[in-house]
Amino acid sequence: MHALILSASHAPLEYSSIDQPTQSVDYETVELHAAALNHRDVFIQQGLYAGIKFPCVLGSDGAGFVNSQAVIIYPALDWGDSPSFQGKNFRVLGMPDQGTFAEYIAVPRENLFPKPSHLSWHEAAALPLAGLTAWRTLFSRCMVKKGEKVLITGIGGGVALMAAQFAVAVGATVYVTTGSEEKLFNAAALNIAGGVNYHDDDWDKQLKQSAGGFDVIIDSAGGDGFARFPAICNPGARIGFYGASLGKVNGLSLQPVFWKQISLLGSTMGSPEEFKQMLDFVEAHQIRPIIDEVFSLERGNEAFAKMEKGKQFGKLVLSIKK
Amino acid sequence: MHALILSASHAPLEYSSIDQPTQSVDYETVELHAAALNHRDVFIQQGLYAGIKFPCVLGSDGAGFVNSQAVIIYPALDWGDSPSFQGKNFRVLGMPDQGTFAEYIAVPRENLFPKPSHLSWHEAAALPLAGLTAWRTLFSRCMVKKGEKVLITGIGGGVALMAAQFAVAVGATVYVTTGSEEKLFNAAALNIAGGVNYHDDDWDKQLKQSAGGFDVIIDSAGGDGFARFPAICNPGARIGFYGASLGKVNGLSLQPVFWKQISLLGSTMGSPEEFKQMLDFVEAHQIRPIIDEVFSLERGNEAFAKMEKGKQFGKLVLSIKK
Repeated sequence: MHALILSASHAPLEYSSIDQPTQSVDYETVELHAAALNHRDVFIQQGLYAGIKFPCVLGSDGAGFVNSQAVIIYPALDWGDSPSFQGKNFRVLGMPDQGTFAEYIAVPRENLFPKPSHLSWHEAAALPLAGLTAWRTLFSRCMVKKGEKVLITGIGGGVALMAAQFAVAVGATVYVTTGSEEKLFNAAALNIAGGVNYHDDDWDKQLKQSAGGFDVIIDSAGGDGFARFPAICNPGARIGFYGASLGKVNGLSLQPVFWKQISLLGSTMGSPEEFKQMLDFVEAHQIRPIIDEVFSLERGNEAFAKMEKGKQFGKLVLSIKK
Repeated sequence: MHALILSASHAPLEYSSIDQPTQSVDYETVELHAAALNHRDVFIQQGLYAGIKFPCVLGSDGAGFVNSQAVIIYPALDWGDSPSFQGKNFRVLGMPDQGTFAEYIAVPRENLFPKPSHLSWHEAAALPLAGLTAWRTLFSRCMVKKGEKVLITGIGGGVALMAAQFAVAVGATVYVTTGSEEKLFNAAALNIAGGVNYHDDDWDKQLKQSAGGFDVIIDSAGGDGFARFPAICNPGARIGFYGASLGKVNGLSLQPVFWKQISLLGSTMGSPEEFKQMLDFVEAHQIRPIIDEVFSLERGNEAFAKMEKGKQFGKLVLSIKK
């Protein structure tokens, strides 16, 4: 079968032939129709994780056919027994296990869920990791409810967009931040209430003025901007975060956090049960992941280059089945 | 009646006569037998809060008699409707409302609860604010369970000691930090598993080595030491905090927080329902607040001076009824 092979840090991906996965007990082989990129894939190519094994086939997101059934793949292995956290053997799909940037993938049977019927193959492939991360952060951790005011930072990324769509669907009032006027313009189509450019020095004051205060904030940037969140929170607010692309937080005053009874909630990925809840919600609300661009599997390097630039608004999808 | 009057920031307290509170509808007048100090009282004397009104009678903790019934007083007013956070009219007892450093206090009838019968007057007066703060942080917020490993920082303060006693009573394994060998020695009597001196550079490594990792951390210091907590936490850990005496947090890496699904939970005071739960727990487990020293009401300034030095191990109590 064809696959995108990564042989070393900073090497380009090679589109070449490798052995098709062999079938083992309790595993099913999926004939992939589409896959999608996540930041994790680019971070591994850049050698930013410890313990990377080469050669490898990246890719956590995929959808395809098993025994003529259309399926969408839970994007990780061995979550473990606790709903509160992943176990020691937990790993995201794609390195060290073979990922979805290939014509076939063998995964445990319990990783397979029926593809939501309103989604195209490209949309289905765009959903798993981003949708699951957004679901757990927004609902399992921050327990967002109808009528609450929600701020989602860095709109344009896959998880942030899914979180915005989920929060709007549940009846929250959603505000966003972004570093680009173009993304702010694009976000307007999501039925959000407002947004600000985080390059403005007073982005927090602008938000406070327009929204009043937030019940939930969803962030993946961290850094010093994170320290400004408590002041724009309502009492009882929850701040959920699943990344920290801007690094460590400095100057965080805990006084407004404890006085307002605020919760700062770290979140990563999600369990198979949460994946199922997320799929049901997506189907019930007919939510479609936003796709920035579709590339053929052969053109994987172009997709990686686009994600590295961070200019995309929505998911970067790889089309596999011709 | 006699009371301790504070007339200005940094002024000494005056033991003098003022009018006894007049009875109003839905209020009861308590003949106080004992009161106890909290950091809040000293912070107000030092002028560290905004909007302080003089003259005032401080004191949030008290126990005494109403119509020949022994009562303990819920130490705040107007918590409000939400269990998650206090409402806009919420205020701690003592400034602007008259506090417990007096022979009589009038409080709403719903503030009164039967005094746990195993407690002396001094012990009952030592319980309310510290016990309530510890209860909410440890149970309502951090949901500590039997068998979990709990770290409590700054043992010696009233809330930290109550938290340690509650956590031991519920069947948790409790470790502590303190800045004094004497307090570490005193803490050994609490059935704790171990402790370290936070003046040691490697206090976190010492704790990691002896305890393995923590499921719950209870802190009121904040500051840069706070940033070391996530690394010594187990997956799914909760870090609860109700103060930040060392100021802002710098160098906080969110990566271990989200990867381990850690929750950072601000907490302050607690509702009347939580106060009732706390009293029931104290009675069921026959817990007695630890008292450092008892002063007569006239000697209030000595008690304030001792709290300012921070050398106490347990509560500073004022004996009122002769």
